[in-house]
Amino acid sequence: MAKKNNDFVKDITKMEDDFPQWYTDVIKKTDMVDYSPVKGFMVIKPYGYAIWENIQSFLDKRFKETGHENCYFPLLIPESLLNKEKEHVEGFAPEVAWVTHGGENKLAERLCIRPTSETIICEMYSKWLTSYRELPYLYNQWCSVVRWEKATRPFLRTSEFLWQEGHTLHETKEEAEKETLQMLNVYKDMAENLLAIPMIVGKKSEKEKFAGAEATYTIEALMHDGKALQSGTSHNLAQHFAKAFDINFQGRTGEIEYPFHTSWGVSTRLIGGVIMVHGDNRGLVLPPFVAPIQVVIIPIAQKKEGVLEKANEIKKELEVLGIRVKLDDNANYSAGWKFNQYEMKGVPLRIEIGPRDISNNVAMVARRDNFEKEPISLEGFGNTVKELLQTVHNDMLTKATRMRDEKTFTFTDYEDFKVKMEETPGFAKGMWCGERECEEKIKDETGVSIRCIPFEEENLGSVCQFCGKPAKYMVYLAKSY
Amino acid sequence: MAKKNNDFVKDITKMEDDFPQWYTDVIKKTDMVDYSPVKGFMVIKPYGYAIWENIQSFLDKRFKETGHENCYFPLLIPESLLNKEKEHVEGFAPEVAWVTHGGENKLAERLCIRPTSETIICEMYSKWLTSYRELPYLYNQWCSVVRWEKATRPFLRTSEFLWQEGHTLHETKEEAEKETLQMLNVYKDMAENLLAIPMIVGKKSEKEKFAGAEATYTIEALMHDGKALQSGTSHNLAQHFAKAFDINFQGRTGEIEYPFHTSWGVSTRLIGGVIMVHGDNRGLVLPPFVAPIQVVIIPIAQKKEGVLEKANEIKKELEVLGIRVKLDDNANYSAGWKFNQYEMKGVPLRIEIGPRDISNNVAMVARRDNFEKEPISLEGFGNTVKELLQTVHNDMLTKATRMRDEKTFTFTDYEDFKVKMEETPGFAKGMWCGERECEEKIKDETGVSIRCIPFEEENLGSVCQFCGKPAKYMVYLAKSY
Repeated sequence: MAKKNNDFVKDITKMEDDFPQWYTDVIKKTDMVDYSPVKGFMVIKPYGYAIWENIQSFLDKRFKETGHENCYFPLLIPESLLNKEKEHVEGFAPEVAWVTHGGENKLAERLCIRPTSETIICEMYSKWLTSYRELPYLYNQWCSVVRWEKATRPFLRTSEFLWQEGHTLHETKEEAEKETLQMLNVYKDMAENLLAIPMIVGKKSEKEKFAGAEATYTIEALMHDGKALQSGTSHNLAQHFAKAFDINFQGRTGEIEYPFHTSWGVSTRLIGGVIMVHGDNRGLVLPPFVAPIQVVIIPIAQKKEGVLEKANEIKKELEVLGIRVKLDDNANYSAGWKFNQYEMKGVPLRIEIGPRDISNNVAMVARRDNFEKEPISLEGFGNTVKELLQTVHNDMLTKATRMRDEKTFTFTDYEDFKVKMEETPGFAKGMWCGERECEEKIKDETGVSIRCIPFEEENLGSVCQFCGKPAKYMVYLAKSY
Repeated sequence: MAKKNNDFVKDITKMEDDFPQWYTDVIKKTDMVDYSPVKGFMVIKPYGYAIWENIQSFLDKRFKETGHENCYFPLLIPESLLNKEKEHVEGFAPEVAWVTHGGENKLAERLCIRPTSETIICEMYSKWLTSYRELPYLYNQWCSVVRWEKATRPFLRTSEFLWQEGHTLHETKEEAEKETLQMLNVYKDMAENLLAIPMIVGKKSEKEKFAGAEATYTIEALMHDGKALQSGTSHNLAQHFAKAFDINFQGRTGEIEYPFHTSWGVSTRLIGGVIMVHGDNRGLVLPPFVAPIQVVIIPIAQKKEGVLEKANEIKKELEVLGIRVKLDDNANYSAGWKFNQYEMKGVPLRIEIGPRDISNNVAMVARRDNFEKEPISLEGFGNTVKELLQTVHNDMLTKATRMRDEKTFTFTDYEDFKVKMEETPGFAKGMWCGERECEEKIKDETGVSIRCIPFEEENLGSVCQFCGKPAKYMVYLAKSY
């Protein structure tokens, strides 16, 4: 049995030896994803896609509860539209895919595959909007986008990815800012309550903000290797696009006004975050509410009378409670093989049920997150399991928060920062002058970027710890994906 | 009030005067869709998209119940892959969009935007499949596809559309045929039970089948103008793609074998079908189970004490039962204006509640499908409304079936066929020799195509009614979208 355990684990590189290879091994061995014949484009296999479906379903409900409606805008954007907002085109033009031929004909104007949809959506908004009475516009779309990336990694950075993009218009600046922060908060809430990932929330620096935005807000997570993952962004676009696209309306006073605009998105990148925050050397560890399979039932000595019947009974009891459960009664594989298989796949709870358990009126329940295993009474079993899933979630969030906090450090000066960032990488909290030149110098010299100016500021001093000028903000810095 | 009614209706061209213009007026006036700056590409607005979401949700559940899993394959397909299956490339190459540049670089090989994904999926399947033990593969994806069309109409034929495409592999020919028919049946069931559209089910002729298929099965609906709409197809691809892409596996006997392959899809085209089967001169008539808003509540004299309270109470009672309900208490518009607005938008039931209704403990309920209106007791109101939605659905399916049957005719000979097809267009049932040359002649001379060889054959004679040769099949013919 011990040998069989190793059959799986030996194929996964240890995290501490080579983190990027560990990541690649995990996503391949657990059948989440595969590389496609088009460089940088991935195939999301059912076990990876089901995680995305759970994220979608959670967010879509929240979007609708906050008054948003879904719609769908074209995949292709004429070059002339992409060019309308100056900062935006500079940010995106170098990384778009160009369609030049439709069928057998060369197109009069090149079309790019959307890298994001502000331009095409603003073009439509400018046709539609006439009066303040029609505002706000609260629209979202689920789709794929293409950004031609040089170096790609499945989920984290791919030339095509799945995401949602919300695009809203408001009558006032205040409403737009409120919307921007509301959606950021929806993302933070999703990260914590669905993915069990704690987030640092804050504002991006001028250098790191979205091309065309007035302000970009972000949720940032810390991975096991001490690198940050930008996990979702919400942009206050002010009137930048509205003016470029001439979106206007008759206001309350009869004057022609420009609306205030927001956009916000999260993508399949989140799946990479789930893997890198919770995973271990045995493979995936999935938070219960996003796991495709929440509970796996493995019958022991399944040929013995009554075992499969009881296993099926338990399955039904859990299903009725809305739990995603799989009964693996495949007779070609041993129970031990299955234990390891589902452990690697990160299934939160494993239930073992055999003749002895049945006679004791219990089932053995093993947790993936901390390997605890104990017999649980079959009386009220479904509800016990349901509560246990919540406990596992809570414990995983606590553990991830502890991990992040342990990897978060302050520093005395730039030299100390450099040493710590190399030796014990993670989030560095420090004071910064707010100047782009200083930020670029840090990035160039260390590869570390300012992740955000957090909403929860702390006063760690009065001078910039990088250049000595007066400090303006406390910031979080990290290497990042 | 009568004048206000006309404000809406006068903007919609009458069906009998100009059916294509009626269709365009309805989709624009009801805010389902808009034209985009890219010719042939449409924007699906929330009221149209919500219908698609209801179709997705219905089908996705059925797909999962029949053992299918969702996944996601790349948007772009290398030209060399598209070329692998001979008939397939001939069918699709003339209508694909080509990506030639990624960012600032010219690509070594052109990539097409998927017109359908058989080729890229088969390429992956050939990497994955090793043993019969892994079969069947039961995968589906929800995505958009691009086919460069010359003449387009929103929902019915657009250069980009949303769809699902299922792609399965099986060990035996029998299993593949069973799957092909099972999914066709899922589509037929969805059409009848969700969209209230009766379907003729059958097999496509050799000429009309999918490029690369062994056999294509179809569901065909009849529109108000007597034209047919191919509404969903399910293909038995035999081993054509498996051989072209060298997908093979070790079979039960140890021999290397090719799997049997199916694919099946429905698209946003279905929304066009809903409009053209059920709509009338006042606008949309939506079947209750697919309607974004199933019930609209319009308070009468809403400033009077207790009216809005009661309206909200009813709203909650309906919501608890899972009914999609909207309470329109906008004080800027009159009740009459609202009646017409929601009538045009095809909301199945309208509830009017005013002071007199409240004192009588009733609400007025008006049906969109037949304009019946009656007071309904507020005792057990929610359940009465729920049952009424089912009744409306049943009546709409009955009406659509009657409409189709009235437009279905038999004919004595080719000349009679031509006259009837011009004078009272619809489905023609007739005997056909089965030869491609004969089929092409009919199409060239009349614009009519063979829609399918129905599963429910009738014997209408022994000779082909078009060319006089011995008859092989009874077929349905129609002009089509």
